Amino acid sequence: MSLLERIKIAGPDERVRAEVARRLDAKTKPRRSLGRLEDLAAAVAAIQRNPQPTVRRKAIVVMAADHGVAAHGVSAYPSEVTRQMVQNFASGGAAICVLARHVGAEVVIADLGCRVAPPPHPAVLDRRIGPGTLDFTEGPAMSRDEAVRAIDVGIALAFELADRGTSLIGLGDMGIGNTTSASAMAAAFLGLAPEAVTGRGTGVDDDGYRRKLEAIVKALEVNRVDPSDALDVLAKLGGFEIAGLAGVALGAASRNIPILMDGLISTAAAFAAARLAPTARGTFLPSHGSVEVGHRHLLASLGTRPLFDLEMRLGEGTGAALAMHLVEASVRLLGEMATFSAAGVTDSGA
Amino acid sequence: MSLLERIKIAGPDERVRAEVARRLDAKTKPRRSLGRLEDLAAAVAAIQRNPQPTVRRKAIVVMAADHGVAAHGVSAYPSEVTRQMVQNFASGGAAICVLARHVGAEVVIADLGCRVAPPPHPAVLDRRIGPGTLDFTEGPAMSRDEAVRAIDVGIALAFELADRGTSLIGLGDMGIGNTTSASAMAAAFLGLAPEAVTGRGTGVDDDGYRRKLEAIVKALEVNRVDPSDALDVLAKLGGFEIAGLAGVALGAASRNIPILMDGLISTAAAFAAARLAPTARGTFLPSHGSVEVGHRHLLASLGTRPLFDLEMRLGEGTGAALAMHLVEASVRLLGEMATFSAAGVTDSGA
Repeated sequence: MSLLERIKIAGPDERVRAEVARRLDAKTKPRRSLGRLEDLAAAVAAIQRNPQPTVRRKAIVVMAADHGVAAHGVSAYPSEVTRQMVQNFASGGAAICVLARHVGAEVVIADLGCRVAPPPHPAVLDRRIGPGTLDFTEGPAMSRDEAVRAIDVGIALAFELADRGTSLIGLGDMGIGNTTSASAMAAAFLGLAPEAVTGRGTGVDDDGYRRKLEAIVKALEVNRVDPSDALDVLAKLGGFEIAGLAGVALGAASRNIPILMDGLISTAAAFAAARLAPTARGTFLPSHGSVEVGHRHLLASLGTRPLFDLEMRLGEGTGAALAMHLVEASVRLLGEMATFSAAGVTDSGA
Repeated sequence: MSLLERIKIAGPDERVRAEVARRLDAKTKPRRSLGRLEDLAAAVAAIQRNPQPTVRRKAIVVMAADHGVAAHGVSAYPSEVTRQMVQNFASGGAAICVLARHVGAEVVIADLGCRVAPPPHPAVLDRRIGPGTLDFTEGPAMSRDEAVRAIDVGIALAFELADRGTSLIGLGDMGIGNTTSASAMAAAFLGLAPEAVTGRGTGVDDDGYRRKLEAIVKALEVNRVDPSDALDVLAKLGGFEIAGLAGVALGAASRNIPILMDGLISTAAAFAAARLAPTARGTFLPSHGSVEVGHRHLLASLGTRPLFDLEMRLGEGTGAALAMHLVEASVRLLGEMATFSAAGVTDSGA
């Protein structure tokens, strides 16, 4: 039996959320004047099911895989770049490496299926499902069994991180062509026209954007996905790294670990996870708002919105890494701020 | 002769800004895909006049003072809270203390004129101009000479911080009634109606908000400020802490140190500084967007907009502290990311 079939997810504890909100009202500041940082502290406490939440070890899980649809010229970059960037992650030169160092998070890199396997490296986990997905304009990107295997890879990895004491996980992705895949998933899940959820990814030109839209339209025609069956959507339109990240999200949720979503791809993964296990939804926290138009739609449908918008569109978990700083700030405010009574400050109740 | 009369400000070096933007284009990411973090790295480099910018010591300067207008019930809190919060800053229990610890910044606390002086404390600088400003609905909040003295306090403090190796400074404020003062300044500087730039501060109720608007209208009538004379606006409508923060901004600018503005009050201070010394303007960087409506108008008139919006409205430099993390992230990305050629990643030029 797969991990996916066995996983149990309680979801956030709403009593803890309410208790933390009350405690924040006694801190030396006007009520609610720390805005969304207060919501964030309460959310982390609810997810950890602990009124005194803590953030100890932090990890960004970056999953990489290639996409058959890339052959249609839907990206500004060739598929080789997926593997090249995995090597760049391993040697610490990519943006996510810098930002993870900055926030004190480890970067966990997993190859779920680059077209050509990167050379073995101690920092890269070999979790290959296959040499990239098939071209989804001609049929399913992967089989249902492959989707479950990729999800299980993610669940198992989240369990490992939990066992190591990780208490905050960010989702990161790398895969040339994967905004095409994630936009197709968004169109299917949300019942929206491809134009409404498709952007220019890493910066494709007008011709490339037209090819991208055409590929999505064709994939939706050919594959006839059942939007109510998240596994069907993931298998037919997703990618190995997207299914893997959905698994990380589920595994983290079952161990009461907050997940920080990043941009379009990781949010599509979290969306699929929330459809597979609705109790997990409150475990998935937003970070930045991507330039990708489909991102907002997915976040809104998850009942949330970005914490910040720096006009980023890089993926890799870069937005999630930046948000870790806010999560930690919120938890420290809850733990370390003085109350009105302890500090001898007059509380007007405002 | 005052420091204000003697100060010299070169302002950002635009050649450095352009050079950094070019260097960022060679890093392993699609062009511009780190969005505003790229602008931030280039801005810090231009302000430091150094293509290899660094952030070493960081400080949040929190200046506190009372406001005569508070007697009109324009705030949800009594004036005593200014002094009480200074003591809370000194003992480390306020929100800004927690956030400054989180980003590794020191908090420099200066009393520019609480109504009653707080008890002496090694962490609180006594820089008192007087026991709070006068009621500006009846005449100038302070004399022109007092405004210059408060500005000079700020300039001198920035110089001290520069001499200690501080390379990034955030502005913080504490003063019951000071959103009334800052909103009046915004109305005068921008030629906008008081309603357009006045919010509820720390959470005043409907009656209090009406009193606040009335006080601003009366102050503008009584004082007949000359909007083209920033010192006139500061003296008649400002506060000791606001003038002091304008001085910090000027002192930092003259030493090529980036200033992070916080919410309405510190942005009004920076705005006044930019009017006193137009070459300083590019030195003042935005942080969060406050709930206070006047804040956006001032930032827009400074030619910028918030980096993030967490619906905060606390002041103290809390938004500036959070933004320090982004400034450091941007500088590290510039310094530590690999180039396409060094990492062996195919550059499509997208």
